[in-house]
Amino acid sequence: MKLCRFNDHRLGVVEGDEVIDVSAALYTLPPISYPVPPGDLLIAHLPEVRSAAQQLQGSAPRLALKDVSLLTPVANPSKIIGAPINYNDHIDESRKDDGIAHGRKITTIHDWGLFLKSSTSLIGFGEPIVLRHGERRNDHECELAVVIGKHCNQVSADQALQYVAGYAIGLDITLRGPEFQCWRKSIDTYSVLGPWLVTADELDSPDNLELSLHVNGEPRQSSSTKHLVMGVAELIAWASSMYALLPGDIIMTGTPAGVGPIVPGDQIQAYVQGVGSATIQVADRYA
Amino acid sequence: MKLCRFNDHRLGVVEGDEVIDVSAALYTLPPISYPVPPGDLLIAHLPEVRSAAQQLQGSAPRLALKDVSLLTPVANPSKIIGAPINYNDHIDESRKDDGIAHGRKITTIHDWGLFLKSSTSLIGFGEPIVLRHGERRNDHECELAVVIGKHCNQVSADQALQYVAGYAIGLDITLRGPEFQCWRKSIDTYSVLGPWLVTADELDSPDNLELSLHVNGEPRQSSSTKHLVMGVAELIAWASSMYALLPGDIIMTGTPAGVGPIVPGDQIQAYVQGVGSATIQVADRYA
Repeated sequence: MKLCRFNDHRLGVVEGDEVIDVSAALYTLPPISYPVPPGDLLIAHLPEVRSAAQQLQGSAPRLALKDVSLLTPVANPSKIIGAPINYNDHIDESRKDDGIAHGRKITTIHDWGLFLKSSTSLIGFGEPIVLRHGERRNDHECELAVVIGKHCNQVSADQALQYVAGYAIGLDITLRGPEFQCWRKSIDTYSVLGPWLVTADELDSPDNLELSLHVNGEPRQSSSTKHLVMGVAELIAWASSMYALLPGDIIMTGTPAGVGPIVPGDQIQAYVQGVGSATIQVADRYA
Repeated sequence: MKLCRFNDHRLGVVEGDEVIDVSAALYTLPPISYPVPPGDLLIAHLPEVRSAAQQLQGSAPRLALKDVSLLTPVANPSKIIGAPINYNDHIDESRKDDGIAHGRKITTIHDWGLFLKSSTSLIGFGEPIVLRHGERRNDHECELAVVIGKHCNQVSADQALQYVAGYAIGLDITLRGPEFQCWRKSIDTYSVLGPWLVTADELDSPDNLELSLHVNGEPRQSSSTKHLVMGVAELIAWASSMYALLPGDIIMTGTPAGVGPIVPGDQIQAYVQGVGSATIQVADRYA
């Protein structure tokens, strides 16, 4: 199932070029009060919501996909985790281009660990990426994003995929510079998730998916998750060795070669096999 | 007012060695449902909660502080932000001790930016710090922690302190190594906040507070926030230049010299002037 959030926090099932409005399925969510239970409530209760959505979708209203504004499919992630230097061709380009490396020694993902992106940086494909520090280089990075479905602590790679709720396209927008990744990649609107969540059952494996990114129709990135240095299951296992993963936590699995600058007015088209493709606008800070 | 959370998510006002149970003040919080409003609900509604607590505290039950288990005063932070190398004496010790620097060139906070700690790493002083990677060095770092009270975007340093809800002791527990700060400092239980929140009106200024840390009675860290390289207002302004700050966001302002290893069985006593002092236990992973 392809589940999206759209317009004023409505819930939809995507079928072809249509969105079926199954917002009534949100009534299956339990009541909450302070303190908020850890993790994203929708993702924590995905089986019940999905079952209700299936019952509703035959009779629910349909909208044209092109007419809705897509929100991030995860509203309240506790963590957005990024995997640095996780494709060898991106490692190569980073070593060659000091506009990417900024003096950092490019070693291995094992030497670096995973980074965090602020949850306040998250948007969906219906919102614009709003650039800051336009005097510096701001790059696109196209990635497979994994959404964790269940509380997960010190899980083995063998078991890790059982904790996945689904997959999406992730854009890890990056201000280049010498500072920490978690600083440069946490600017408001610099994490894009969507266009929807494809539930894990729809993909045979996350480790053999083509992905690509175009800017204004020009090809920039094209690869496959089969080239990930650390695959999806290993990333989940490694992350969970350090901290609990909660329902709705997002792992952006890393970007292949071809990263490059974006400027206000650009249109980014991203594609991940099995998820689909989507377009997002780049805006100026004061547009 | 010193506001604490304790036991099974109860709310208390701390007076001397007593806690007044004002949990009924939580009924002033508005109802919430999915998607959860951004930020910590209690901190977002602190004025109303505080007013209700004041009305309750004359007649509410009193408990001995030593008999309650203190939780983090912020239950649902969207971000925990850390300030690296923000005391000159800690910069000096980091340059001298490769057990801290691990080959990193110690430059300035401006070169590094601020880091993030995972929200899943957060505990209160009533819970133990549970070490991972006991084969490596795990250090204490005592800090003044600032809790943001209102949504804050690109605020000036002049205006920044108006956005503070209050202050607390922050312990930025740190696994030493070559990896990202946001990886090594995000282990479950490696962010300690408390013992309570002192509302901002109780402190004349956050920039002249003594702070200290003892391990098993032995003095390890002793300084004053007057030695911060980047003061509290500047930290808030700088952070808000990159991302929105939400009610309940926590800024750990950096640690002075004297950081050092902790091991299971240790007892850490931390003090920040105007906040108070508190003790926390260090436990083994499998204790």
